[in-house]
Amino acid sequence: MTMEAERTLREEDLTGLAELAAQLRVDSIRCSTQAGSGHPTSSLSAADLLAVLISRHLRYDWSYPGNRANDHLIFSKGHASPLLYAVFRATGAISEQELLETYRQSNSRLQGHPTPVLPWVDTATGSLGQGLPVGVGIALAGRYLDKLPYHVWVLCGDSETAEGSIWEALDKAGHYGLRNLTAIVDVNRFGQRGPTELEWDLDTYRRRVEAFGCHPLVVDGHDLAAIDEVLGRAREATGPTVVLARTVKGKGVPDIENRPDWHGKALEPDRAERAVQALGGVRQIRVAGPRPAAAPPPAPAPAGEAPELPRYEKGAKVATRNAYGDALRALGVRPDVVALDGEVSDSTRADKFGEAYPDRFFEMFIAEQQLVAAAVGLRVRGYRPFAATFAAFLSRAYDFIRMAGISRADIALAGSHAGVEIGPDGPSQMGLEDLAALRAVHGSTVLYPSDAVSCAALVAAMVDREGVSYLRTTRGKYPVLYDNGEDFPIGGSKVVRDGGDVALIGAGVTVHNCLAAADELAREGIDARVVDLYSVKPVDRQRLLDAVRDTGGRLVVVEDHYPQGGLGSAVLESLADLAEPVRVNHLAVRGLPGSGTPAQQMDRAGIGVHAIVSAARAIA
Amino acid sequence: MTMEAERTLREEDLTGLAELAAQLRVDSIRCSTQAGSGHPTSSLSAADLLAVLISRHLRYDWSYPGNRANDHLIFSKGHASPLLYAVFRATGAISEQELLETYRQSNSRLQGHPTPVLPWVDTATGSLGQGLPVGVGIALAGRYLDKLPYHVWVLCGDSETAEGSIWEALDKAGHYGLRNLTAIVDVNRFGQRGPTELEWDLDTYRRRVEAFGCHPLVVDGHDLAAIDEVLGRAREATGPTVVLARTVKGKGVPDIENRPDWHGKALEPDRAERAVQALGGVRQIRVAGPRPAAAPPPAPAPAGEAPELPRYEKGAKVATRNAYGDALRALGVRPDVVALDGEVSDSTRADKFGEAYPDRFFEMFIAEQQLVAAAVGLRVRGYRPFAATFAAFLSRAYDFIRMAGISRADIALAGSHAGVEIGPDGPSQMGLEDLAALRAVHGSTVLYPSDAVSCAALVAAMVDREGVSYLRTTRGKYPVLYDNGEDFPIGGSKVVRDGGDVALIGAGVTVHNCLAAADELAREGIDARVVDLYSVKPVDRQRLLDAVRDTGGRLVVVEDHYPQGGLGSAVLESLADLAEPVRVNHLAVRGLPGSGTPAQQMDRAGIGVHAIVSAARAIA
Repeated sequence: MTMEAERTLREEDLTGLAELAAQLRVDSIRCSTQAGSGHPTSSLSAADLLAVLISRHLRYDWSYPGNRANDHLIFSKGHASPLLYAVFRATGAISEQELLETYRQSNSRLQGHPTPVLPWVDTATGSLGQGLPVGVGIALAGRYLDKLPYHVWVLCGDSETAEGSIWEALDKAGHYGLRNLTAIVDVNRFGQRGPTELEWDLDTYRRRVEAFGCHPLVVDGHDLAAIDEVLGRAREATGPTVVLARTVKGKGVPDIENRPDWHGKALEPDRAERAVQALGGVRQIRVAGPRPAAAPPPAPAPAGEAPELPRYEKGAKVATRNAYGDALRALGVRPDVVALDGEVSDSTRADKFGEAYPDRFFEMFIAEQQLVAAAVGLRVRGYRPFAATFAAFLSRAYDFIRMAGISRADIALAGSHAGVEIGPDGPSQMGLEDLAALRAVHGSTVLYPSDAVSCAALVAAMVDREGVSYLRTTRGKYPVLYDNGEDFPIGGSKVVRDGGDVALIGAGVTVHNCLAAADELAREGIDARVVDLYSVKPVDRQRLLDAVRDTGGRLVVVEDHYPQGGLGSAVLESLADLAEPVRVNHLAVRGLPGSGTPAQQMDRAGIGVHAIVSAARAIA
Repeated sequence: MTMEAERTLREEDLTGLAELAAQLRVDSIRCSTQAGSGHPTSSLSAADLLAVLISRHLRYDWSYPGNRANDHLIFSKGHASPLLYAVFRATGAISEQELLETYRQSNSRLQGHPTPVLPWVDTATGSLGQGLPVGVGIALAGRYLDKLPYHVWVLCGDSETAEGSIWEALDKAGHYGLRNLTAIVDVNRFGQRGPTELEWDLDTYRRRVEAFGCHPLVVDGHDLAAIDEVLGRAREATGPTVVLARTVKGKGVPDIENRPDWHGKALEPDRAERAVQALGGVRQIRVAGPRPAAAPPPAPAPAGEAPELPRYEKGAKVATRNAYGDALRALGVRPDVVALDGEVSDSTRADKFGEAYPDRFFEMFIAEQQLVAAAVGLRVRGYRPFAATFAAFLSRAYDFIRMAGISRADIALAGSHAGVEIGPDGPSQMGLEDLAALRAVHGSTVLYPSDAVSCAALVAAMVDREGVSYLRTTRGKYPVLYDNGEDFPIGGSKVVRDGGDVALIGAGVTVHNCLAAADELAREGIDARVVDLYSVKPVDRQRLLDAVRDTGGRLVVVEDHYPQGGLGSAVLESLADLAEPVRVNHLAVRGLPGSGTPAQQMDRAGIGVHAIVSAARAIA
């Protein structure tokens, strides 16, 4: 079945679309019944929408998902994976056998919710309200960077419009005039446990969408001709569009249609059999929808001059957040590097990049979820995004970071103003759980430099790093410890002072406290080694083993973070399996901080020089 | 200065209000200049709004913040703390001396951003977009539980309307018809680093607010009479109201007015001095605004019958999520217990409470940020909220949980479907970082029961627990291990099988795997102890020390969680300072899971029976 989107639908086209929709329904039922789980009813409601979309509007080269001229198709309602995989089967991307035999099975790429282990999937979905924000990132790339005519189509559930992130996304779509973005909301009026908040109140959806700067297109989601017309209008619109499709959950299977108790349940085999028969049985329709017009240009590449990292005078006081900005600006010679801000670029110092490369700098305002999602979307298009806000406020986007880990998205995050070191602003502004949270993201890298030279080197190392990488920076200025040009491999560490009685292990600001403590301990005749564990994940196990061996297992670990899951845990996890004794005196922020100067805060938290000296004395 | 809100403003009233507004400005400038940091310009823009609010509309007994008939005042824009504290000074709640001498100082209760260490502050703010959602929770209590006429007034910044959480809040305010809630948005058109997205486009704000079901009231935020009128209308409105106040940042100090480069900067002393003089100098106005009318009724109390916990047959297979629902329903005999759902109550089994106590059950739909914020708000009114969703999706609300920790809010959270154990749904639905994230919240409690009896007991223990407590539950059914009525203190653990060669330490689902492994090890002559570490934080250090002593430091820790920051780290952190050797073989989910059956998933992740046996063998 082939159609061209350009001409008007004829009667036989409608028949063909209806046949395809029936196949998508039949296959959604078959694969989920075979698996014994899944969301067939949430697939049935959107089958007509997808039949029209893939036959006549989605310009996609199914044999070459890497074609950069392809449109993008994202299932923000990731639980409708039976429909998505039925689409893949209809296009020939996967076989009927794979669909029926492997859906939701062990080691299958057809997982319960889609992830980019499939080459046609841009981003993992299944945590609702995330596919659309990622689509915004892709559309930003399309309009402002790639300048290609591909269109981003995102299938959303109606339930997920309760997520604030959907409105962050539509707001940014409107703000940036993303005419290349269309959200298709499958308004089937039922969530998991009952009716949605707005049910079929399409008018309220329409007013919300409009107020957020997008163009609403209300349609009967089972009227194939009407769907075709609005999708055509969506592609031609002058701004972002939201198709509000009134649909029936379970559509096509009368005994489960429009019922609240059929969410997330596979049909029993005999009911499935009856439903498939009623839908006209199994079909072998193969869709060849429109293809992208132009020959694709190459992906953005790390071409351009070699970045020249900033240089700092040893001993000069420089804030690592400034070094972040300096290094990011230096990396800007690479045309694939882009930066995003959560309305605090004068604090994170991402503004340095923004001033130098305004065309590759995206202001997301105070919407951290969209900040991270846009980074994921830009990465889908081959860019190397750096997104920054306060370390504390990355917690707002934690679910997005978690999902980016599942997507194996190569994105760089920077969190500034980490720890009690920030001083008077109080605990709401302090990142004191970021190391724990970010370490626990699948495949993540966590870095925490102590000085400007190491910070700049690590920013440069992040640019080609796989997965989610996170850099923690400090508000205040501290002396430069290292020589320009020194090497700071991820997974490495530095011995900044040698000694064999006890090892003081810090990262970031506490390295400076450890050095001062070592001076004081030296006056008492205690010979303290100071280790700068700038790579918190992966951690430098060999350096830790050396420290254990050389000090007889006497370690003091000091971190500007709550005691759970941070630097101390990284050290302990790394040494857990040692047979010899290791005694770790772990200093961390155990109380709830208030205001004060940075020095007062660190002293009160028990991570200052005096506390380190005492802790070392106790075990040395 | 006393006024009654009931009568029309006279000329001398306006003069008095203008004088008060000038005092609030002067004090905001003075305290921030004295501290050398803070946000005076963000305070100046809202001074007129607050002068009218506290003089004529906020019904508050400043001498008795615990008065349950008091209105509520929340600064969602927490950085405007100079203004909030200037208000406290004007009402006599704090002295001029405290304001000037302690703002932002070490050990002061007047922190950079407000927290409930101050008795007039309901919730910590400073992470934007959170005060309004918490206000929604308070207003829910007012309308549906307390049924008292207090009004909730929330001062919001315009920048923070970019946060999706603001729209989650307005949506719920509209849905629940919260006529007792008024958001006052200080539209001063500047964020931290420049203009806001909408600047002074009040019309777009108006349309958004309206579309989300709230009544917009647009006003010149420096016209005292107009402000008075809209605040009066807000109190009398039939639904939630949003005052959209067009204001000027830095208003009242001409050289910094309406300028983008004065965010978050204290005035230099000489500039401050000139500004204070231009504003007419220091005043000693004392406001006595309207007082709450009625004598306050008592707080909700844990009266009623004693809860009778559910009972389970030993060996019967019961999912802990079902036990959560059973226990929560049992606790419902206490009138202070309330429950909240994120549209998955049939999965978390919070629906059991909802069926029994529909009047104390709040559906938040798929808006996890609002879910947690509403719990915090309900707690402000003295209730004991239990909020539940999938463990994975609590990550969506991580910033709110972090801030709840800073607020020291006593809220109970339950995360179901934790770990790879969920089976075919795939990684997006698995909580695999929740233990790390929740442990790192200040003052938190983290519980992970292995069976229905312990789960029910721990739910009962959470109800009066201080701070944020988190219960992790499992999707599948596993045998009941304990006798009904057994004691499960928080901070405790259970030895479910004794043995001295090696200790197998699990929690939740892995306890069952450890038991099966111990059986197998016994056949090989290895005598394995099995410890159920159901209290992940605080952890039972004494039990761990016993295990170290009795096994010669041979421990296997097994968790259905990523390796960072979870159960393994809890054990290691607890034993870090031991002088004797401890060798921990740590089994956790190290790869990225896909789909499969629960048993396949656990085996592939290396946390199944076979892996535990091998790990124990390796060190026993």
